[in-house]
Amino acid sequence: MLTGYKIRTDLALETREQFKEENVEVRGVEVKERYDEKKDIRTTVVKIRTENGAKAMGRPQGTYITIEAPNLSVPDDDYHREVSEEVAKHLRCLINLEKIKSVLVVGLGNQGITADSLGPEVIGNLRMTRHVIQEYGWMGIGEEKQCSVSGIVPGVMAQTGMETSEIVRGVVSETKPDVVIAVDALAARSTKRLNRTIQITDTGIHPGSGVGNHRSGLTEENLKVKVIGIGVPTVVDAATIVHDSMAHLLETLEEEEQKEFLEEMISPHLRMMFVTPKDVDETVKYLSFTISEGLNMAFEKV
Amino acid sequence: MLTGYKIRTDLALETREQFKEENVEVRGVEVKERYDEKKDIRTTVVKIRTENGAKAMGRPQGTYITIEAPNLSVPDDDYHREVSEEVAKHLRCLINLEKIKSVLVVGLGNQGITADSLGPEVIGNLRMTRHVIQEYGWMGIGEEKQCSVSGIVPGVMAQTGMETSEIVRGVVSETKPDVVIAVDALAARSTKRLNRTIQITDTGIHPGSGVGNHRSGLTEENLKVKVIGIGVPTVVDAATIVHDSMAHLLETLEEEEQKEFLEEMISPHLRMMFVTPKDVDETVKYLSFTISEGLNMAFEKV
Amino acid sequence: MLTGYKIRTDLALETREQFKEENVEVRGVEVKERYDEKKDIRTTVVKIRTENGAKAMGRPQGTYITIEAPNLSVPDDDYHREVSEEVAKHLRCLINLEKIKSVLVVGLGNQGITADSLGPEVIGNLRMTRHVIQEYGWMGIGEEKQCSVSGIVPGVMAQTGMETSEIVRGVVSETKPDVVIAVDALAARSTKRLNRTIQITDTGIHPGSGVGNHRSGLTEENLKVKVIGIGVPTVVDAATIVHDSMAHLLETLEEEEQKEFLEEMISPHLRMMFVTPKDVDETVKYLSFTISEGLNMAFEKV
Amino acid sequence: MLTGYKIRTDLALETREQFKEENVEVRGVEVKERYDEKKDIRTTVVKIRTENGAKAMGRPQGTYITIEAPNLSVPDDDYHREVSEEVAKHLRCLINLEKIKSVLVVGLGNQGITADSLGPEVIGNLRMTRHVIQEYGWMGIGEEKQCSVSGIVPGVMAQTGMETSEIVRGVVSETKPDVVIAVDALAARSTKRLNRTIQITDTGIHPGSGVGNHRSGLTEENLKVKVIGIGVPTVVDAATIVHDSMAHLLETLEEEEQKEFLEEMISPHLRMMFVTPKDVDETVKYLSFTISEGLNMAFEKV
Repeated sequence: MLTGYKIRTDLALETREQFKEENVEVRGVEVKERYDEKKDIRTTVVKIRTENGAKAMGRPQGTYITIEAPNLSVPDDDYHREVSEEVAKHLRCLINLEKIKSVLVVGLGNQGITADSLGPEVIGNLRMTRHVIQEYGWMGIGEEKQCSVSGIVPGVMAQTGMETSEIVRGVVSETKPDVVIAVDALAARSTKRLNRTIQITDTGIHPGSGVGNHRSGLTEENLKVKVIGIGVPTVVDAATIVHDSMAHLLETLEEEEQKEFLEEMISPHLRMMFVTPKDVDETVKYLSFTISEGLNMAFEKV
Repeated sequence: MLTGYKIRTDLALETREQFKEENVEVRGVEVKERYDEKKDIRTTVVKIRTENGAKAMGRPQGTYITIEAPNLSVPDDDYHREVSEEVAKHLRCLINLEKIKSVLVVGLGNQGITADSLGPEVIGNLRMTRHVIQEYGWMGIGEEKQCSVSGIVPGVMAQTGMETSEIVRGVVSETKPDVVIAVDALAARSTKRLNRTIQITDTGIHPGSGVGNHRSGLTEENLKVKVIGIGVPTVVDAATIVHDSMAHLLETLEEEEQKEFLEEMISPHLRMMFVTPKDVDETVKYLSFTISEGLNMAFEKV
Repeated sequence: MLTGYKIRTDLALETREQFKEENVEVRGVEVKERYDEKKDIRTTVVKIRTENGAKAMGRPQGTYITIEAPNLSVPDDDYHREVSEEVAKHLRCLINLEKIKSVLVVGLGNQGITADSLGPEVIGNLRMTRHVIQEYGWMGIGEEKQCSVSGIVPGVMAQTGMETSEIVRGVVSETKPDVVIAVDALAARSTKRLNRTIQITDTGIHPGSGVGNHRSGLTEENLKVKVIGIGVPTVVDAATIVHDSMAHLLETLEEEEQKEFLEEMISPHLRMMFVTPKDVDETVKYLSFTISEGLNMAFEKV
Repeated sequence: MLTGYKIRTDLALETREQFKEENVEVRGVEVKERYDEKKDIRTTVVKIRTENGAKAMGRPQGTYITIEAPNLSVPDDDYHREVSEEVAKHLRCLINLEKIKSVLVVGLGNQGITADSLGPEVIGNLRMTRHVIQEYGWMGIGEEKQCSVSGIVPGVMAQTGMETSEIVRGVVSETKPDVVIAVDALAARSTKRLNRTIQITDTGIHPGSGVGNHRSGLTEENLKVKVIGIGVPTVVDAATIVHDSMAHLLETLEEEEQKEFLEEMISPHLRMMFVTPKDVDETVKYLSFTISEGLNMAFEKV
């Protein structure tokens, strides 16, 4: 890997691939892949098991599930329903929804920036039940097995003057959910993953991830409850595609020349840019629906 | 007043007017009016001073300032600036902004319903400073005298599964502002007051007020900090204009006939309806800007 | 009927009802009603057959189909599908879609005013095919029997500086569709009809109808092609509900007193107001989908 | 220039720069540059005078004015006003607004895609006068010298089933404006030009330009009236930044290797991507306001 420029990706899967490219073996990291040919859905589970693995991978110990579904950006209702079911299935595994009674879903990101609006959009499509249960008891919603679901769109720091984690911590301490699920738009390394990949992890949301670069993260450590992170990559940093396109060529250069190129090409200016599919406005709406349906399914606890 | 139907208004001024119409004197309530002819702005201060006055007025003891500015629904920048200054002036009186260091502004209401979106729109136009001060100290914003400002749009219960007061209480206990300012769209009795009246009160927001009928209120009692309520009437309940149009005529009828009429005319169905000006979408945007400018001015503490 | 105030309704059905209330028989007007108990859909066909009938009804000769579906404002997909089929069925009758090859759908109204945004929303959900057929022939869309569909949102005069009819006339003369279908939000007399009634007529759109009061209409006379009007009432004029609530009472008064009351109650101010359900933002989106699905079904010509 | 990949830019200025880089002189093309240091606004006028020049530049004969204003993406009202005046000034030169009586402004692009919504946003901020003049004469607007202004947002082909040029041609033939001004979001070659450059040209809009790749253009040839094109680059094709980052390196490779790289790097997939600043949603709103103010100024003809 080139020195001097840090490739950014929020997908554990892609970090893993970088090592593979470089033929480096990472101890303490376990990878399992499953491909459902009929549905054309590839599921990869990366488990970071040791402190060492965490260091190498640059992310905390835990489970990272990646669902790659090439047709996710196509408006096909049946296909999306299958992906929703896949999301529900993995959620049920990561959190024991048989025992969990209440969930707070947090829609991270900036509603005013399309590529960053996935989280807020998901909250908009979610079936909230907490207020009904509070008022009428579990019978009020007609289903004894349903989770108590609440949700919030905390906004971003420039809009609120507060860290997202402060707001969520306040709401958690007041409403005491058993688990927090945070939904966010992510940055990927490869444009081929945009809007067709879903990552689910039991490690929460970490500082510096997301499209809008959250300052502070949402983790079990700072919220005192389990935090599940669900993310979809909607952008690639512009600097990344430049870097990647140069990688091979740079190998042929002297180190000094490399450095020079990187400085010239990946200007601070470029770091304010991102790469996104032309149909991102439409796709984000569609995708957020698929994820909220997955959540709705999971919370029904059949 | 007709029995059997309760006229709804969130304006203390209008409740006071009802008594006046009926030539009833209300003890423990003090009213002062001032009219600025040049600016065409009428300011009425209603002070409810006793428990008795509170009972009669159907609202808690405290100060209710009403600014009536007929041209508020006209897009005239200079006029709006004057109203913003008026808002700032009264705010500075109600809360001693010389001593106050931090403010949390809460934008109540439902962004998805135009007539109820005033609160969220105000937050959108507000200059947040808390995060800058947290990071760089008071020098970070270049003005030593500026308040630390944060803001939140908590959403409504159907969207979040939580009472607004739960969310705000959580955020308050986490970020510890000196005062909370809650902005909300109100219901008036008279269509003539829509979008041209601003009420500022030091009693907070009370259950059952607002366009969307909040279940629980935001008061010093439940938040443990001072709460200022700022509201603009954007709707009249449809039942109210029917009631008012009938009032005189009904006086000529026997009580039994009156009751019959009220039951027939003001059906539960009508209670789902509201009356609003045709240009409400445009006006709410404009008004929210005027109010947020008033807040921005007040927080600068010149 | 009271003199001095003209009740406004865009529904032929409601004009007809007024006559019925007054026990007046209208010659040249034929009414047929059908009620589908299972679906809870009532369909009324009013045919104005003579010049005399047109005069009495205050609208041109032609057929006015009204679909009343009480659950239209409830988000029940199956029910909405049935209503869509009903819309498609009546459209196929009014215009011989076996012979018609091309349709231009016009979404009237102002996107910026929720209650007036039905037309633009319908265009947003419509499956356009004209450009595919122009490029690849009828085989391009895989269905030989499909209509060539195009659509336009002309905006309102204050936004464009042009009469809607000028824009539509220009587009019609350039693209030569066989028929124009104009979709619009209407004003009803009764709040009970809001968002649960669909009117389809072969007389087009007439001056002064619609929520936003179009200056000029869209008719066969001024477009030189057949024009179908589809409308859903989303508002009631505020003056109308006041009038209606007073009607019975006024009967007991002398004529002079009546006049006095009307002048006092129905001020010009009130004419800028409308009555609309609190959930109009959500309902208009839902309804527009039902209508566009009805159109999509009709154009597939199975 | 690399073969096999065609750099895309809608800015004549950038095409000109490519030649300069390659030290190629282009006959029939005249360039004048002016830099206003105080305002930090650079204005370049490229005149393509001959058929030969047009061929070399890949765009028709005519005048291309480019205003580069680095602070355009900063929300500074005074600066924006200066740029608006600059736009007005150049417009008055390109079209003799002393003689012109009526203008139709066309807002090209897709409202649903932020980076492509500049045109529709401009129409939203424009002061329309045609309908007032039609109704009350030139006195109706109180200013004898004001242009008759109308505007339309024709939408894109996938939304309407019609070519934009068909719609505009229809509206032009019906309302007969003296000149058409078409506003559009453009693609640039350099990310440094995004949201801070305005191009004004008397050659109209050409097929294949714009963010959304319009099929047919808007030119004097197909509309039969003069057409001015105003554009702001809001995106760079993702393929372009990859290409540019490789350009220097590729020079060191054999031609065969070059080709291989280009095929690998600039996949068809990448052509569906664009690069855009993170704050594009906010900036487009701001910029559209600056341009519509420039148009409003020009039409007032002081």
